[in-house]
This record gives sequence, structure tokens and C-alpha cells, in this order.
Amino acid sequence: MLRIGILGCGRIGKVHARSAMQNSRCKVMAVADAHPQAARALADGSGARVQLADEIIASPDIDAVIICSPTDTHADYIEAAARAGKATLCEKPVDLSADRIAACLERIAPAGIPLMIGFNRRFDPSFDQLQQQLRAGRIGDIESVSIISRDPAPPTAEYIRRSGGLFRDMMIHDFDLARFLLGEEPVEVYAAGSALFDKNVRAEGDVDTAAALLKTARGAICQISCSRRASYGYDQRIEVHGAKGMLRAANIHLTTVECADQSGFHTDPLLNFFLERYMPAYQRELDHFIDAVASGATPSPSGWDGLLAQRLADAATESARTGRSIKLES
Amino acid sequence: MLRIGILGCGRIGKVHARSAMQNSRCKVMAVADAHPQAARALADGSGARVQLADEIIASPDIDAVIICSPTDTHADYIEAAARAGKATLCEKPVDLSADRIAACLERIAPAGIPLMIGFNRRFDPSFDQLQQQLRAGRIGDIESVSIISRDPAPPTAEYIRRSGGLFRDMMIHDFDLARFLLGEEPVEVYAAGSALFDKNVRAEGDVDTAAALLKTARGAICQISCSRRASYGYDQRIEVHGAKGMLRAANIHLTTVECADQSGFHTDPLLNFFLERYMPAYQRELDHFIDAVASGATPSPSGWDGLLAQRLADAATESARTGRSIKLES
Amino acid sequence: MLRIGILGCGRIGKVHARSAMQNSRCKVMAVADAHPQAARALADGSGARVQLADEIIASPDIDAVIICSPTDTHADYIEAAARAGKATLCEKPVDLSADRIAACLERIAPAGIPLMIGFNRRFDPSFDQLQQQLRAGRIGDIESVSIISRDPAPPTAEYIRRSGGLFRDMMIHDFDLARFLLGEEPVEVYAAGSALFDKNVRAEGDVDTAAALLKTARGAICQISCSRRASYGYDQRIEVHGAKGMLRAANIHLTTVECADQSGFHTDPLLNFFLERYMPAYQRELDHFIDAVASGATPSPSGWDGLLAQRLADAATESARTGRSIKLES
Amino acid sequence: MLRIGILGCGRIGKVHARSAMQNSRCKVMAVADAHPQAARALADGSGARVQLADEIIASPDIDAVIICSPTDTHADYIEAAARAGKATLCEKPVDLSADRIAACLERIAPAGIPLMIGFNRRFDPSFDQLQQQLRAGRIGDIESVSIISRDPAPPTAEYIRRSGGLFRDMMIHDFDLARFLLGEEPVEVYAAGSALFDKNVRAEGDVDTAAALLKTARGAICQISCSRRASYGYDQRIEVHGAKGMLRAANIHLTTVECADQSGFHTDPLLNFFLERYMPAYQRELDHFIDAVASGATPSPSGWDGLLAQRLADAATESARTGRSIKLES
Repeated sequence: MLRIGILGCGRIGKVHARSAMQNSRCKVMAVADAHPQAARALADGSGARVQLADEIIASPDIDAVIICSPTDTHADYIEAAARAGKATLCEKPVDLSADRIAACLERIAPAGIPLMIGFNRRFDPSFDQLQQQLRAGRIGDIESVSIISRDPAPPTAEYIRRSGGLFRDMMIHDFDLARFLLGEEPVEVYAAGSALFDKNVRAEGDVDTAAALLKTARGAICQISCSRRASYGYDQRIEVHGAKGMLRAANIHLTTVECADQSGFHTDPLLNFFLERYMPAYQRELDHFIDAVASGATPSPSGWDGLLAQRLADAATESARTGRSIKLES
Repeated sequence: MLRIGILGCGRIGKVHARSAMQNSRCKVMAVADAHPQAARALADGSGARVQLADEIIASPDIDAVIICSPTDTHADYIEAAARAGKATLCEKPVDLSADRIAACLERIAPAGIPLMIGFNRRFDPSFDQLQQQLRAGRIGDIESVSIISRDPAPPTAEYIRRSGGLFRDMMIHDFDLARFLLGEEPVEVYAAGSALFDKNVRAEGDVDTAAALLKTARGAICQISCSRRASYGYDQRIEVHGAKGMLRAANIHLTTVECADQSGFHTDPLLNFFLERYMPAYQRELDHFIDAVASGATPSPSGWDGLLAQRLADAATESARTGRSIKLES
Repeated sequence: MLRIGILGCGRIGKVHARSAMQNSRCKVMAVADAHPQAARALADGSGARVQLADEIIASPDIDAVIICSPTDTHADYIEAAARAGKATLCEKPVDLSADRIAACLERIAPAGIPLMIGFNRRFDPSFDQLQQQLRAGRIGDIESVSIISRDPAPPTAEYIRRSGGLFRDMMIHDFDLARFLLGEEPVEVYAAGSALFDKNVRAEGDVDTAAALLKTARGAICQISCSRRASYGYDQRIEVHGAKGMLRAANIHLTTVECADQSGFHTDPLLNFFLERYMPAYQRELDHFIDAVASGATPSPSGWDGLLAQRLADAATESARTGRSIKLES
Repeated sequence: MLRIGILGCGRIGKVHARSAMQNSRCKVMAVADAHPQAARALADGSGARVQLADEIIASPDIDAVIICSPTDTHADYIEAAARAGKATLCEKPVDLSADRIAACLERIAPAGIPLMIGFNRRFDPSFDQLQQQLRAGRIGDIESVSIISRDPAPPTAEYIRRSGGLFRDMMIHDFDLARFLLGEEPVEVYAAGSALFDKNVRAEGDVDTAAALLKTARGAICQISCSRRASYGYDQRIEVHGAKGMLRAANIHLTTVECADQSGFHTDPLLNFFLERYMPAYQRELDHFIDAVASGATPSPSGWDGLLAQRLADAATESARTGRSIKLES
């Protein structure tokens, strides 16, 4: 029974609390949030106690922490948790600065405490199954990858201001998926973005529509397409081409109902957003974390995965700004 | 080069003329119709001459006739063509009376002239492919068959009056497909029908919505569903279950375009009717007829297939009238 | 908080216990089973106490019972629960004898205690959504209904022996769905069945492959197709045709992964069986039961729904035995 | 009746001859080819006479020529045809040098003779329908476009050597489609390519796997993905995202047959290559050409469309070589 403390009780903190409550192998002991009301509400729902984050990290009846607080607190909490010997599952991104992430990983390395980064999409049952088939050689050597990621609607102005920009906040998930699928590191990144429809995005100098093109040393090509808007629901697709064929994973609709009439055939929109689409992924992610802690294995995605995705996001941000492709040191 | 005469220049006569004109192995020499204008129009379009049906049958430069005239003329023309030694492709049904069909087949047997019945759906590329996979054992022994056949809109009152009723006019195609797929003869037929939406159908004592349930000696079960109406186009599907799995053939949409918006995902209606859906089938049917005549093989579906489908249609008609299942002599 | 006792701790008892544990509006207080070990195991997993069924029914801290015991105990438990004033959710069928069901309903009527029958498929999110669209007039008046239900593999010989036969054990779900979708009562039933592949089924004089054709007073036609076997998973589909179009609900695959190679395009089999496919339906069923008990509304499907589905199953059984269609009193 | 001469009797010349023979509004009068046998074969099949290209262009009984000869002859023939007053349908590309194309267009401008370029994909029924819905505003302002184009297998070494490279030979179709769909000109092009599997491609310094990312002045983004190989058939898809939703066109399979078994659900590969997939497009292309010549309207795609696609192909070639994005003058 893994005894868990949750640091941060916002939207994603609630997701992890809900996963943990449905998992018979762990128990939420304590929760913390800068807003006491948020912590209180989650504590009431989960039977946990409310404490300060530092108290949770120091508490002897806590085995592991899940970091769901604002991004600028992540690296500090990871370091504090490592010092206190607590296994850590940290939401992405570790930090908006790749240098800060690298420093954090260096500092915690001696402690040898498990650190897992919350790239939840790797645990989507379909994406995971697809990747396993890739690794098993179902379609041979990889030639190209395409990742599509469209949110249903743009976030708030406040969220955008603190997000680090679309490439670091949103496309970072796709950079992680690209590495997960490609099985080798991208060595060159080109990206382009436009502010086409969201005035907050434009006011912040950010983009709402973007694409990236990555290339690996072996010559495999990866295309990523992101948008902050999709009228028809949360659009999350991957497609991989290899020497022997193609593997792809499709979207999930609200229901399987289809209506046919004079104007044609009609099916439902997609599951609305990540809470609906990726709830099974969050549950499987937590299971993997519990397994890793129990067995002493290094959890995956690791802190290094967090760092390497961030470097891709930084490169994409620079490429979109300068119009040049960016080479990455391998 | 098979030299062809077409008897009957209505809708289906035009279909066969069009197929023949695109086929480099045959030539339409002459056409006949009770309405001289109809014959004239088809002759102008195809470069054929206009003659009386009997003249065509007697003509020395005609190798084969395609009978597309009203049903009550079919059997007489088949017999005349057999006497004249002309290979014959006759539109379904051979006759509304199974006894008349049996007599016709008996009379022409001595002549040994090829007779093929126009059950065009056997030549649909998907249906044909499915049946070949069935015969090759892809799903093992057949356990059940489902056939769906829905026309886009009811025919005219005049058509209904002379049709012999839905079971003999429309479901006869499905009875032939059932035999084609099952690979054995049904021994019991139950059918039910309703006049739900078409006032002409009701006025004639016919039905516009119907279903049948067939059983073979081995115990395989076949369900057929027919309707004279489908708002979304011409609905033509088959599904077969066997010991090892399922084989089915889907409908064909006007285009592959899909639109996704707030209300969901939308695709086109189906191909509108048999001219659009089954044009490739008519072309392959004519090819098979030409092959059979050239090689001396018996064409399939044969006159006996015409007779056996008619007996199933008669049994269904009686079953729907009496509410009892009808046993067929094997 | 609805305090629940579960009578019967087999496969379906576990399903309901799991639903109840994930539902914050109810609590499993006690469980009973003729096999003490089965009760013990479920009690351990759910934090409930083990008691005898009669003790649970009599217990003052129990508000409702869920009856998951063998069929021949259902009616007695329903009556005992009604006498004790406990709301009841009873698994289908209420009894293998329609007369016994009718007597049971008559006896409990004066008590006015809520009784709900576990026709779980009505609560499948897609089936439920389809039915709501039907009732809202999306495709106009209903003309025909098709229901397909194929289990992945036959049950044990022991199960078959006590099942009442395929029509009463398996197709009863489809009869309930037919009534749910048609919105009016069938007045005539024809059914046919065969023992094609399962030797236990054959030994018991039962069938493993079956079809039924129902007709309503208004003339709507319903086709049902059942099999005890499907190599590709649990096949559960419905399709309804109306004056303005078609509504259908498709199957659910294990994942959305698709592989394309030289031999074509390949997707996963279906969710394996009812536990996987209908878990959301069981959860929604329990929610509806809790709502009904809380509000004092009559739960649906009611005891009468249980009786009417049983009468259709009896009629189908008789029809398959005699080869005649059976008329039902309305 | 448009009297046509076909210059070049190779693969694509045969396609146009076949289209023309099935079109009642035109007639193939004469054919030419550097290989007399090729010309003879096509003449025999189509009832045309064999002549030299220059003779055909000069012949008074020829209204229009279809140029299907090697690329390096296109511009000269276009100019000769313009001088002779013959309407011209020229296969893509006009020339491998954009400057040569520009000079050609300038020279023929005074003659005012219709010139159409054979970007056949614009006439695919699904792509055309999608583009019409775009122009009609079905999904609002365009935000991003994705085009996928994968050939079933690489061409011969000889073909590759003379092709001008993947971007000019293959992706030029996608550049034309991009312009057709976007409705505005790309102003920046980035491209990347790899030689991953074809040794001939590698020997020529060409690529077999490539991607491009285009951006328009308004900020719309277009991604293109090409490969010289696809085990599952000819992969041709487009997807467009706009302010109100998505429009996409899917691939076409050999048949609609689906088989389900223990390992899942299986459908056919795609139509094998452009002859199968785009035959209807070639027929509609010829129809448009005949219409334009008859009405005096400028055919579309025009010579300018040929020039602008070539400039995009040149820019992509340079980008892939240098690793920099290329800006285009508008």
C-alpha cells in the first residue's frame, strides 16, 4: 500500500486523487494547496488530511508525493522530496527552463529516489498498444511519424501568460510522444506557428496553431500538428509508417450511435477533453508508478524524458521565432 | 465478338446496352421495344438497328439476346431464342409463376442453349469477393446469414400493380443472394410484411416493409430485411457468420468526404440506387455471359437458379399471407 | 446513502458490488451466498459483513437488496424483501415461469416497494442515447428494428441445463431491448433455432444459434439474431429504421489501433464479454435504482417489464419447437 | 465533338486515350510516340492514325492535343500547339525549370489558346467535393491543411534519374493540391527528406521519404507527407481544419468486404495506384477540358498553376538541400 501525498489540488490534482482512490494499492494520506479551500475540498472527498506541502514531504507516513502544483514550484519540490527520500510523480513540465531541469536532475541523482514525469499519453491504452507493436517490429523500421493534438478550446488569458507558450505547454506532450514512438532522438527541429483565432494568445505573442517537423539521425521524419481549438472535441491521433506498413490510433467518440438521414450519416463528436479521454491513461500511469516504487525499478517516463522533451520544446520555440531549423546536440 | 440483340429498351435495357457498348468483346446489333420511340432512342445511342423482337431472334447475325422486356414476355422469348439457337441472358424474374418457369426450362432443355438469369448482385465486386472467401473456408461452416436491401423510394403504382408483390419483385434478389451465400437450399421459409408508408402499396394489398427467416436442412439460418424506402440512399448489405468468424460487405457512399463540427462527424449518403451501385456488377455479369457463351460452359445463375428463387418468393408470399412457415420440397 | 445487501456473490454479484463500491451514494453493508467462501471473498473485498440472505432482508440497517442468486430463488426473495419493505434490484430473469412472475408481482403490489429488473443493456450509454433519439422523433415512426447479440463462447453444460434455454436465458435481453426500442408491444412472435456447434447445447435439446421475428400491432417488424459464439468478441448491435432514417449503435473494440500492411487494414477484436462491454451500463443501472429509491419514483425496467420479456421468451421457445408463429394477447 | 491528338503513348498517354474513348464528346484522331510500336499499339486500340507529333500539331482535322511525352518536350510542344492554334492539355510538369515554364507562358500568351495542366487530383470526386465545401464556407476560415501522398512502390532507377527529384516529380501534385485547398499562396516553404529504403533513390542523391511545411501570408499552415512506398496500397488523403471544423477525404479500398476473426477485423488494402484511384478524376479532367474549349473559358488548372506549383517544388528542393526555410515572392 503506497501512502501518497498530493501537492496541489487544482484540476490535475483532483485527477490524480480520483485515480488513487480507485486504486486498491495506494492511499491518499494528505493533500496540500496554496488555496486552503481547494485542499479542504479534496481532503473531504478523499478522506485525506490537509497539510502544508513541506509537512507532507517531511511526514514519516508518506511514501510518495504527486506534484500537481504550479510549474515554478516543481523543481524545488522534486529536490525536497528526494532529500526526504520520497518517490515522486511530477506533472509536466518539470520547469520552463531546461537548465533548471538539468540542475534538478543532477542534484537528486545521488539520492537515487524514483522520479517519474506525468506524460500521461504514453499510458493511453491505444497509444501504449501501438508503441508495443512498433517495438515488436510489426511494421519494421520507422520511416515517419505523425502526431495530431487539438484541444477543444483555448485556455484563459491567465493560463496562457504563465504557460511558457504553446510549444512548451501543449506540444511538449507531442514531443514526448514523438520520442516514445520514434525510439531515437530527434536531431533537428523546425517549427512554425500562427495566432489565428485567439486574441489572448495574440496579446501574449503566443500562437494558437502550430506545426513542427523533426528529423532523427537515421533520417526518420516526424510531423506534429497542434491547435488550441477543435469544434468537434479533443482530437488526439498518432500515425506511424514503417518499412512494412502503418500503425495508427484513432479518436474516441462520445457514443457509438450513428444516424443516417437524407443529408448523410452522422456520428457523435469526440470525447470532450483530456479528463474524459485520458482517465484510463492516468489510472495506468499511477499503476506504473506504484509498480516502479514497489519493485525498485526506474519509472518511465523519467526525469531525463522530462528534460529531453523540454529541450525539443525550447528548440521549437526558437525555430518558430527565427524561421530557422534548430540542431540539437545528441 | 458476341453479336447481341436487346429485347426491351426501358431502364434495364439501357443498362445492358451501356455495358455492352463499353465491352470490346460484344456488339449490340439490334434492339426491339413495344414502344418504337424507346427502341429508336437506344438504337441511336448504340449504333444498333431497330427490329421487332421476333426478327431479332430469327436474325442470322445475332448470337445472343438479352431479354429486358416486361416479365410476362420473358418465358416466351426464352423459348423462341432457344428454338433459334440464341444464347440468352434474361432479366429476373423469368415469370411470376414458378410452374411457367419450370415448363419453360423443360421445353428449352433439349436445345442445350445457354440461359443465364440476371441476378446482377452476384457480380457485385464486394459480394462476389465475400462469397469466394466463404467458399474458400475463410470463416468455416456457415451458421447464419443476414441480408439487408432497402430501396431509396417506392416505385410507381403502375409498377407495383404488375410487380407480383414485394417478395417476388424485390426480395427475390435477396432469395437468390441467400442461396448464393448459403451454398445449400433453404427448406423452410417464414415471412412477414406490412404496408407502413406507401398508399399505392396498401391499395394493391402489397407490403412496403418485410422480413423473412429461412432455414436450411443443416440448420443454418438466414434473415432478410427489405424496405421500399431509405432516406439515406440504396442500402445493400450482407453479413455471414461462420464457425471461425464473420464476413460482411458494407455500403458505398457518394464520396469519402467527412466533415466534423460541433454536432459531430458527417459523411455522405449512399449511392442513390441500383444504376449507381451495381453498374460494375452489370458489366461483370455481361463479361461472365460472354465467357460462358464463348467457352460453352453453363452460365450462372442459370434458369434453375431463377426457378428456385421464384419458389422461395412464392413461399414467402404465402407465409406472409397465412402467418405460417412454409416447408419447401428439396 | 443507500445501504445495500447483496444476495448472491457469483459473477454478477461481484459486478454489482464493484459498481456499488465506486458509487458514493450507496454502501454495501452485507453479502450472502450459499457458498460461504464466495460470500467471504466478496465481503473482504468490499468491507461488508457476511450474513444469511434472510438475515440481510430482515436487517434494520439495510435499505435495499440486489438479488444475484440462482434464478429459482428470485421470486421468493423479491416477496420476502417486499414484506420487509426493502427496495429490490433483481437480476433477470425473475423466474423461468411467467405465471410465477405474475403471481409474485401480484403479491408484492400492495406493499408498494420499488422493484427494478436488471436488464442492464437499457443503460448502455450508446443504446440509451439511441433510444432517447428515437423517442425524440429523430427518425420518425419506427418501421423496423434489428438486434444482434452474440456471446464470445458457449456457457458450461451445467449453466445450459439450468438456463431455461437460449430464448429465456440469452434472447430475453433482446426481447427487453426490442420492447424498449419499439415503444409498443409485439403481438406475434416467430422463432427458429439450431444446435450447430455446441455438443452440450445439443445434449440438452437447446439451441446455440437462433433468430426471431416479432411484429407489433401497428406493423413494425423486429428481427433478432443470437449466437452462443463469436470468435471476434462480444457482438452487441442495434439498428432501427424509421420514416426519416436509421439509427444504429456499433460495437466497441479493445483499442482504436489500426495496422495496415500488404494484406489490408486490421483492427482489434471487440471487448470480450459483458463485464467489459457493459460495466458502464451496470454503473448507470445502479445510479438509476438509487435515484428511484431516493425519489420514490417507480424504477424502470419494472417487474412488469420482467414479466413481458419472459412472455416473449416463452412464445419464442414454443414457436421454435412447433414451427408456428405465436400470437400474444395484448 | 473535339478532335484530339495524343502526343506520347506511354502509361499516361494510354490513360488519356481510354478516357477519350469513353467520352462521347471527343474523338482520338491521331497519336504519336518516339517509339513507333507504342504509337501503333495505341492507334490499334483507339481507331486513331499514327503520325509524327509535328504532323499532328499541324493537322487541320485536330482541334486539341494532349501532351503525354517526356517532360523535356512539353514546353516546345505547348509553344508549337499555341502557334498552330490547338487547345492543349499538358501533363505535369510543364518543365523542370520554372524559368522555362515562365518563358513558355509568356510566348504563348498572345495566341490566347487554352492551356490546361494535368493536375488530375483536383478532379477526384471526393477532393473536388471537399474543396467546394471549403469554398462554400462549410468550416469557415482555413487554419491548417494536411496532405498525405504515398505511392505503393518506388519507380525505376531510370525514372528517378530523369524525374527532377521527389519534390518536383511527386510532391508537385501535393503543392498544387495545397494551393487548390488553401485558396491563397504559400509564402514560406520548409522541407526535409531522407533516402531510407530505395537504393536507386540514394544513388541519385534523391529522397524517398519527405515532408514539407508551408505557411501562407495569413498564417495558415500546410503539412505535406510523401513516401515512395506504402505496403497497403496508394495512400491519398487530405484534411483541412477551419474555424468551424474539419473536412477530410479518406482512401478507397479494393472492396467493402470486412472479415472478423479471433485476431480482429480485417479489410482490403487500398486501390493499388493512380490508374485505379484516379480514373474517375482523369475522366472528369478531360470533361472540364472539353467544356473549357467549347465555351472559350480558361481551363483550370492553368499554365500559371503549373508555374506556381513548380516554384514551390523548387523551393522545397532547395530547403531540403540547405536545411533553411525558403521565402517566396508573392
